[in-house]
Amino acid sequence: MPETKGSTQLSRAKKGESTPEMEAVARQEGLDTAVLMEKVARGRVVIPKNTRRQGVALCGIGEGLRVKVNANIGTSEAFPGVEQEKEKLQAAIDAGADAVMDLSTGGDLPGMLEMVLETAPVPVGTVPIYGAAVRARVNRGGVLKMSEADLFQEIEQHAAAGVDFLTLHCGLTLEVLKNLRHQGRIMGVVSRGGAILAGWMLEKGQENPLYEQFDRVLEIARKYDVTLSLGDGLRPGCLEDATDRAQVQELLVLGELVQRSREAEVQVMVEGPGHVPLHQGEMNVTLAKSLCQGAPFYVLGPLVTDVAPGYDHIAAAIGGTLAAAAGADFLCYVTPAEHLGLPGIEEVHQGVIASRLAGHAADLARGVEAARQWDRAMSLARKNLDWEAQIRLALDPRRARQLYEQLQSEKQEECTMCGPYCALKMVKDL
Amino acid sequence: MPETKGSTQLSRAKKGESTPEMEAVARQEGLDTAVLMEKVARGRVVIPKNTRRQGVALCGIGEGLRVKVNANIGTSEAFPGVEQEKEKLQAAIDAGADAVMDLSTGGDLPGMLEMVLETAPVPVGTVPIYGAAVRARVNRGGVLKMSEADLFQEIEQHAAAGVDFLTLHCGLTLEVLKNLRHQGRIMGVVSRGGAILAGWMLEKGQENPLYEQFDRVLEIARKYDVTLSLGDGLRPGCLEDATDRAQVQELLVLGELVQRSREAEVQVMVEGPGHVPLHQGEMNVTLAKSLCQGAPFYVLGPLVTDVAPGYDHIAAAIGGTLAAAAGADFLCYVTPAEHLGLPGIEEVHQGVIASRLAGHAADLARGVEAARQWDRAMSLARKNLDWEAQIRLALDPRRARQLYEQLQSEKQEECTMCGPYCALKMVKDL
Repeated sequence: MPETKGSTQLSRAKKGESTPEMEAVARQEGLDTAVLMEKVARGRVVIPKNTRRQGVALCGIGEGLRVKVNANIGTSEAFPGVEQEKEKLQAAIDAGADAVMDLSTGGDLPGMLEMVLETAPVPVGTVPIYGAAVRARVNRGGVLKMSEADLFQEIEQHAAAGVDFLTLHCGLTLEVLKNLRHQGRIMGVVSRGGAILAGWMLEKGQENPLYEQFDRVLEIARKYDVTLSLGDGLRPGCLEDATDRAQVQELLVLGELVQRSREAEVQVMVEGPGHVPLHQGEMNVTLAKSLCQGAPFYVLGPLVTDVAPGYDHIAAAIGGTLAAAAGADFLCYVTPAEHLGLPGIEEVHQGVIASRLAGHAADLARGVEAARQWDRAMSLARKNLDWEAQIRLALDPRRARQLYEQLQSEKQEECTMCGPYCALKMVKDL
Repeated sequence: MPETKGSTQLSRAKKGESTPEMEAVARQEGLDTAVLMEKVARGRVVIPKNTRRQGVALCGIGEGLRVKVNANIGTSEAFPGVEQEKEKLQAAIDAGADAVMDLSTGGDLPGMLEMVLETAPVPVGTVPIYGAAVRARVNRGGVLKMSEADLFQEIEQHAAAGVDFLTLHCGLTLEVLKNLRHQGRIMGVVSRGGAILAGWMLEKGQENPLYEQFDRVLEIARKYDVTLSLGDGLRPGCLEDATDRAQVQELLVLGELVQRSREAEVQVMVEGPGHVPLHQGEMNVTLAKSLCQGAPFYVLGPLVTDVAPGYDHIAAAIGGTLAAAAGADFLCYVTPAEHLGLPGIEEVHQGVIASRLAGHAADLARGVEAARQWDRAMSLARKNLDWEAQIRLALDPRRARQLYEQLQSEKQEECTMCGPYCALKMVKDL
């Protein structure tokens, strides 16, 4: 058990104390605070919010809540400019992202994180191993020159800087890696953090420090009420590799770490795939929720095919809708640039909208009343041929207006598709 | 039973005679001709091909086959130009549409149909009631001035001209309409053909001639081996209206007409919704397949939310994947222009690609071996960082190349997202 005992949403909820954060989230979601508090206490809901971060929109993630969407941004060696990432961050927020992750691996990493924490009006997540690996490569000539101290120093710095949730690949143990080697995957490891760790462990023949010293991780998390996002370093990178022994064995370890996190009163969620064929989508979520005792499940996609570069936001929206309807709570966006390069501003926008569409479609299936009311309002606007209301109610009003204006020949009640043969008008006229 | 007895794929299959069409489709799908013939004989598969049409790619639709995609084009009063529709037709074919429908309601309708039949290298479908209604409106001042003779004349003309499949709303009976009135829907009738027929029936107090004189429909279809596509005039136009009594009662009638079509040895498929929430998607397909004795099921979408104008191709891809995985066989594309106006060339392209993505994801879930091989080949290309192969294997190679070139800073092995932190490269180097 960690020594430094900060107060967390989870520790407060377990004591039956409501917090302003719980009250705000309950209000947003149309729930009783008592109901929400019980979900937080049982670890079914997390509210990622670092105690050092203020004035940020709250975002409850988990069972019974609206599905949330995360957008990744970040510099790379090819595109190290912080200003450009700031524009992407703004594009993600404008498109309706509920959270953002800074996945930078190039240029001024501390300056980039500072910008994100100052600019983002929503919870911010990071993957600290990137920073540790980049420093090892730049200062000592190789990613694998990273020391355990580098890694924990980076984690501590991110937590102290105010990061609300940290992706840490704590479940990638030597035993899991042994299984991976026997498995014979096509794609091996496609998680960047997972690959760095796996390389480090194999090179040194040492256990994963994030697993071995998980109590140290918990101590840092607890101090700032950082939510842990347990990364799936062995998520499948193609449909053929989905749901293999390596993936499931890592998930077993993640389940164990969820339990230890809850015992330490640290908020925790679990990350999931990746590339998963449609007929395995629901099973993957049900399995993860079961093995991880109902912890909020955060999926990247999942992509339902490998052959859609340029359209992976759609492949992810299909898999994400199914996953979220089956119980996934948090969708990491995938942009049309996935598998081709770092997304630009337009791809960020497209990615957030596609994920929001997926989350909303799942909300409708999950019975979220506000979601049903939104669709109902749109249907009434459509029935009344009220174009201004239709545009206002659209998932992306700017895009809806742009297409509407582009496709209309002149102002008229019905649209250019049917013209005088508009079914709605014919029926209205009867 | 019809008097004029043409020979159809169904009549030949029932006699145990294989046709060049069955042989070609079996080859495409990797099936034994005998297996395919049995599916055609039992009405589980249709091969829409008018006996008057030659030199066109064949397209088997139904159980055990690759999911197929249809693209709608057509003039309207606002955009009556045939040349522009020809460009859209070409865009749909280039994007990989398996069939096209001409839904024209403006300008030179016979000239437009002639162009489509001459240009399209794939099966062509139409909705003859549009032409009959347009002529009534233009020549006699109102859609409802359409006579039964007009309607049957139009059907006969389309069949004689070589149209491969005809959408006819034969199941929209007076009894079904009575139910609709009691139902209290938000959107009423959103099918254009359904609205024309409903208006005509209510105005005249007469039964639907396509139902009452269904034998006459069958006679025409049999003569040219036209495949009937039984339209769902009461498909839901919003999520709130989905799977109501009106929709299901019409489906019951369609099931009856499937049986009569098969008895007359006329190929037949059934059209389905529309707007359906995710949790009703599978049920809708299973119900339709059961009530219609396994007839190929042709869905429009289904859209899993009402609030996505500008992104309805994605909403339809989500619903279409789920529907096709549950047994739907033929996806009518939905473009980003849906609910906003008539699509332009770019929207046609986007619509076809999104539907193909949905069909392919469903093929993977349905266990289509060629689909699995395609994804596997892409995964190997990705593992090998072989960019040319990845682009060649992409669902839309042109778009993949364009984005790839746009997002790369300079020629390098790994992409700009991860650069030197490429997981695949790190793992390869180990």
